[in-house]
Amino acid sequence: MRNIKIILEYDGTNYQGWQYQKHTDKTIQQTLEMKLSKLNKSKVAVTGAGRTDSGAHAKGQTANFYLDVDIPVSQIPIALNSMLPADIVCKDAEKVANDFHARYDSKAKKYRYRILNRSYHSVFTRNYVYTLYKKLNLEKIKLALKDFIGEYDFSAFQSAGSDVATTDREIKSFEMKYVGEEIWFEIVGTGFLYNMVRIIIGTLIEIGLDKRPEDDVKRIIKSCDRREAGFTAPAKGLTLLRVYY
Amino acid sequence: MRNIKIILEYDGTNYQGWQYQKHTDKTIQQTLEMKLSKLNKSKVAVTGAGRTDSGAHAKGQTANFYLDVDIPVSQIPIALNSMLPADIVCKDAEKVANDFHARYDSKAKKYRYRILNRSYHSVFTRNYVYTLYKKLNLEKIKLALKDFIGEYDFSAFQSAGSDVATTDREIKSFEMKYVGEEIWFEIVGTGFLYNMVRIIIGTLIEIGLDKRPEDDVKRIIKSCDRREAGFTAPAKGLTLLRVYY
Repeated sequence: MRNIKIILEYDGTNYQGWQYQKHTDKTIQQTLEMKLSKLNKSKVAVTGAGRTDSGAHAKGQTANFYLDVDIPVSQIPIALNSMLPADIVCKDAEKVANDFHARYDSKAKKYRYRILNRSYHSVFTRNYVYTLYKKLNLEKIKLALKDFIGEYDFSAFQSAGSDVATTDREIKSFEMKYVGEEIWFEIVGTGFLYNMVRIIIGTLIEIGLDKRPEDDVKRIIKSCDRREAGFTAPAKGLTLLRVYY
Repeated sequence: MRNIKIILEYDGTNYQGWQYQKHTDKTIQQTLEMKLSKLNKSKVAVTGAGRTDSGAHAKGQTANFYLDVDIPVSQIPIALNSMLPADIVCKDAEKVANDFHARYDSKAKKYRYRILNRSYHSVFTRNYVYTLYKKLNLEKIKLALKDFIGEYDFSAFQSAGSDVATTDREIKSFEMKYVGEEIWFEIVGTGFLYNMVRIIIGTLIEIGLDKRPEDDVKRIIKSCDRREAGFTAPAKGLTLLRVYY
């Protein structure tokens, strides 16, 4: 039995997120498990590095699973892609050590949040970008986002409903880029709490709309109170770019 | 009654093309006419510059129509976008001379054809890009595409089913660009015959796959025979970028 690590890209628009759910089979994990079990001719369980939200996307989700069937590793993406729907694609596969675990072994993750800041949306990126019609003060946002970098108790930036041992996390880098008419926020951290990236983005948007001062972030972090932070920005703007091991 | 010119962007994936059809209401033209007639409180007919194919897209389709209702021109995109489905967006509107005609007055059109040349498709651009898994010889294509520039009888690059006075057309420019992992073909011409861009691209693909010599284009043009040209590349890779007046 081989342990296989794969890199996945998916458009999460039509899925209820990554994670297995009892009352639907429209999750990325269940879709993969169904196809892999068919390929393997016996049940396969898939472990993902990040549990992306309903409507969020991935360009570099990483997952692992154990395979009995005798198929060359280089053929796994081709076999899998011939079975998967068009909104999920396997970009790469490799054999890894038997104890490799996609989630526990991950050292950091990189996410991108895309904002389009103009008076009309783009039909081509409408499911991948959050369109804001009101003009953002990007200079203010640029100043504010620096205050997220470092190791903090991020409990103010966590939605209820997750049970974690500690709410300390480290943001290693946080950049803002201009790409065509879009603004891309790229954040690398050792791990993220439930909805953490989306609440960080929602808070920065409120700063950019002059609803908050630019030095509000430090105060919110210290408060450890979810009610002090901003709204949860829509999932569709969020993409898991890469998992580091 | 004012004559209004609008610029449109649309994702053509779920439409049977631009042009009105008897047995469906899923065309861009019908969708627009329905919404504009509602706005105008009486029937509005829309004239488009280009009749894009089923599944083809637009970033700069131009259209005009006559409006009775007293609404400021600057408010037309906002009003229209609040009514239109998410895959059609009005980018701009302006009042034009009463005799302006979006199709007859157009001097040239610019189209883009997007190809992704790698072993797996992209989930995010899957409806806007033609994915070719076999490696293309791009140097050969670059040489061949120069032979399309100029004024010729392009009847070899026309699908049956259209009735035009002349098959002479002028290609003003034709460029190949590398954009990330994609190859973009951008072509400007005074006008295009039915399926002309897609047959040109299909022919270039066959040259790039070494099914044809790189100097085949001149011969095909001279033949005036559709059977000498290549296949019709899929509509989803095609986008009408701009109409020149």
